[in-house]
Amino acid sequence: MKIIQASSEIITATPDLEQVIELAGRVCWKSEDKICDGSAEKLIKFLKGKNHASVMEHGVITVKIVCDRGVSHELVRHRIASFSQESTRYVNYSKDKQGGGITVIQPCFWGEGTAMFHEWKRACQQAEETYLAMLDNGAGPQEARSVLPNSLKTEIFVTANVREWQHIFELRCAPAAHPSMREIMIPLQEKFAKYWPSIFGDHLDA
Amino acid sequence: MKIIQASSEIITATPDLEQVIELAGRVCWKSEDKICDGSAEKLIKFLKGKNHASVMEHGVITVKIVCDRGVSHELVRHRIASFSQESTRYVNYSKDKQGGGITVIQPCFWGEGTAMFHEWKRACQQAEETYLAMLDNGAGPQEARSVLPNSLKTEIFVTANVREWQHIFELRCAPAAHPSMREIMIPLQEKFAKYWPSIFGDHLDA
Amino acid sequence: MKIIQASSEIITATPDLEQVIELAGRVCWKSEDKICDGSAEKLIKFLKGKNHASVMEHGVITVKIVCDRGVSHELVRHRIASFSQESTRYVNYSKDKQGGGITVIQPCFWGEGTAMFHEWKRACQQAEETYLAMLDNGAGPQEARSVLPNSLKTEIFVTANVREWQHIFELRCAPAAHPSMREIMIPLQEKFAKYWPSIFGDHLDA
Amino acid sequence: MKIIQASSEIITATPDLEQVIELAGRVCWKSEDKICDGSAEKLIKFLKGKNHASVMEHGVITVKIVCDRGVSHELVRHRIASFSQESTRYVNYSKDKQGGGITVIQPCFWGEGTAMFHEWKRACQQAEETYLAMLDNGAGPQEARSVLPNSLKTEIFVTANVREWQHIFELRCAPAAHPSMREIMIPLQEKFAKYWPSIFGDHLDA
Repeated sequence: MKIIQASSEIITATPDLEQVIELAGRVCWKSEDKICDGSAEKLIKFLKGKNHASVMEHGVITVKIVCDRGVSHELVRHRIASFSQESTRYVNYSKDKQGGGITVIQPCFWGEGTAMFHEWKRACQQAEETYLAMLDNGAGPQEARSVLPNSLKTEIFVTANVREWQHIFELRCAPAAHPSMREIMIPLQEKFAKYWPSIFGDHLDA
Repeated sequence: MKIIQASSEIITATPDLEQVIELAGRVCWKSEDKICDGSAEKLIKFLKGKNHASVMEHGVITVKIVCDRGVSHELVRHRIASFSQESTRYVNYSKDKQGGGITVIQPCFWGEGTAMFHEWKRACQQAEETYLAMLDNGAGPQEARSVLPNSLKTEIFVTANVREWQHIFELRCAPAAHPSMREIMIPLQEKFAKYWPSIFGDHLDA
Repeated sequence: MKIIQASSEIITATPDLEQVIELAGRVCWKSEDKICDGSAEKLIKFLKGKNHASVMEHGVITVKIVCDRGVSHELVRHRIASFSQESTRYVNYSKDKQGGGITVIQPCFWGEGTAMFHEWKRACQQAEETYLAMLDNGAGPQEARSVLPNSLKTEIFVTANVREWQHIFELRCAPAAHPSMREIMIPLQEKFAKYWPSIFGDHLDA
Repeated sequence: MKIIQASSEIITATPDLEQVIELAGRVCWKSEDKICDGSAEKLIKFLKGKNHASVMEHGVITVKIVCDRGVSHELVRHRIASFSQESTRYVNYSKDKQGGGITVIQPCFWGEGTAMFHEWKRACQQAEETYLAMLDNGAGPQEARSVLPNSLKTEIFVTANVREWQHIFELRCAPAAHPSMREIMIPLQEKFAKYWPSIFGDHLDA
């Protein structure tokens, strides 16, 4: 059993994302003649102020997230997005296939030396043992997965437009969000803010 | 720990569902004057033949499904639907709260007397023990859930329109679907076919 | 040519809409035992305060709207809804088919005796004449529609859930909305508020 | 009044679109080690054969379409897409603003020398005259638009993923589609097929 930490990575995005959003917005008002250096950032600020969020949808960003199955179950509830997720039906975590049994995500709320962490690790190992024994005894991965814990690592591609990413960050970085969700989303928002400050940099102003 | 079987139940639906679909369809062609006894069924047949599926969206059906968290994770991938799901963050499965610890869904692919069933049951009980001990030691439900197995029972309200339910049944009753998904969806489709035969009764013809 | 006014009509809705929303919400927290007289309205108030809007999606309402093609073009931009619209491709507005040529929607911003109204009426009549002449000369309705004005009457079935209707009213009753859109949406919101005051009655408090 | 032809233009797309789709697909089965020269095209073929269409959603393409308001009204019915459209509320087509009054799209079904074309042109000119006179007399663009014809030119940005574009082409290139829609969509599909032959090149095989 491997224990790893949750993570995220930007895979790809609309090239010249701010400029595409500007161009889309200027089609609405036929003001393409106003495009110049810095005009995209200015228009985006204006759109945000007016809550003309639909224009933001022309910018699209794809991210790969590594998280546990509890987080991914929440994540796929965002319906204005596209997902491709590691399948517990088709992937076989037996030792010889993925080399080393299952992988689990270390819970961010329990320090490594704590009793809770120890208990959690032991429980995950027990689950893995049963899973592997079941496979040995002829169960398929999609059956044996029954015993796998919520902490099981999963990988998921998420493609969403800027408007939806803004909505995701609003919900998933908030104090009310699950700690394992926030652990992923807060640093991801930081990355977005670095690439596209006029769009995702707002929370830095506070 | 309680072991129960997966199940489904129709909660509510558009009243006079076929008639509403007919009325919507006849608005498109201004043929409302052709409405008579049996005309709805006839129009629905015509719409299906022509693949004019969008008109079907005016009929909406709400279902409550009781399943494991593996099935629900697949289910919520249907984006043209609305979901409200039992929360492992807010529900506390300690003995005094929901009376009797966790509830798990019996896997339909392992008979009760089999070695696999025995192994699975033992693994679920171990997970429950750890979960309950963690709560006793001060963990919150949203933390302790980390060790809960894929077989954990969940309840979920699903509201979708006829077109989407047709799509759901097409995917989720197929031989390639997960057995625990088919266990729910095949009887549910039967129920739909009884209520709305002109819409959901096709698979009975084969 | 007939001149009529824009209008709207509730066709159908989820039976016991507030109770269905309550039931869906209580599945999330497993608090079904708290259902009693008046509990639905109380829960809905709580959900609104917490912005738990997704639960509202289990209530669905179908409306028939009669409006001009400018309004309908805006209306169908709401993507979380289902539409069936009178087709200018398939409906033939020649005198013998729909009895009396085209129908147009009276603009709410021009009084009947005004010069603007007179000009508008004359322009619509000219367009109708050309349309009818084209049909006589062998054009199909989907070709001859090229000359029909924005004021052309259209009928459209709209099925949307409570959450989306709330969003529609927020945008389409606002001062910034098109007058012909507000003419329809403000009275429609009133009707909704009468049927489901706990959900749509908020604007009455102001 | 200007008369122009309908057109389309690819504005931007996911960089390395096929490779992103491949990567997303391989996350599902953890087969990233199989990526090599030509493997993307092979996987895409496999996905298409298996109808695993969801993976295709990670590729996104933005197009600008210039069409009449009849075509755009149909186009925006595609709900799995993002639109930004030239506004007849905010754009003022008076001579001094956009230089030359309104612009209309030449119907592809009437040759320039024909009687139908002549009638159509005259009707559009009459509509323009009324529109411009109304603006002169104090009407706002969003009021005066009432008399503008279905043939009025509009510009629209459309961002959609590969799966939706495939669906759009299937519906909108078909013989049953409106001729003015096909006029745009058939050449657009050709352009897509040139850029991404493994995805959009199928219809060339027939």
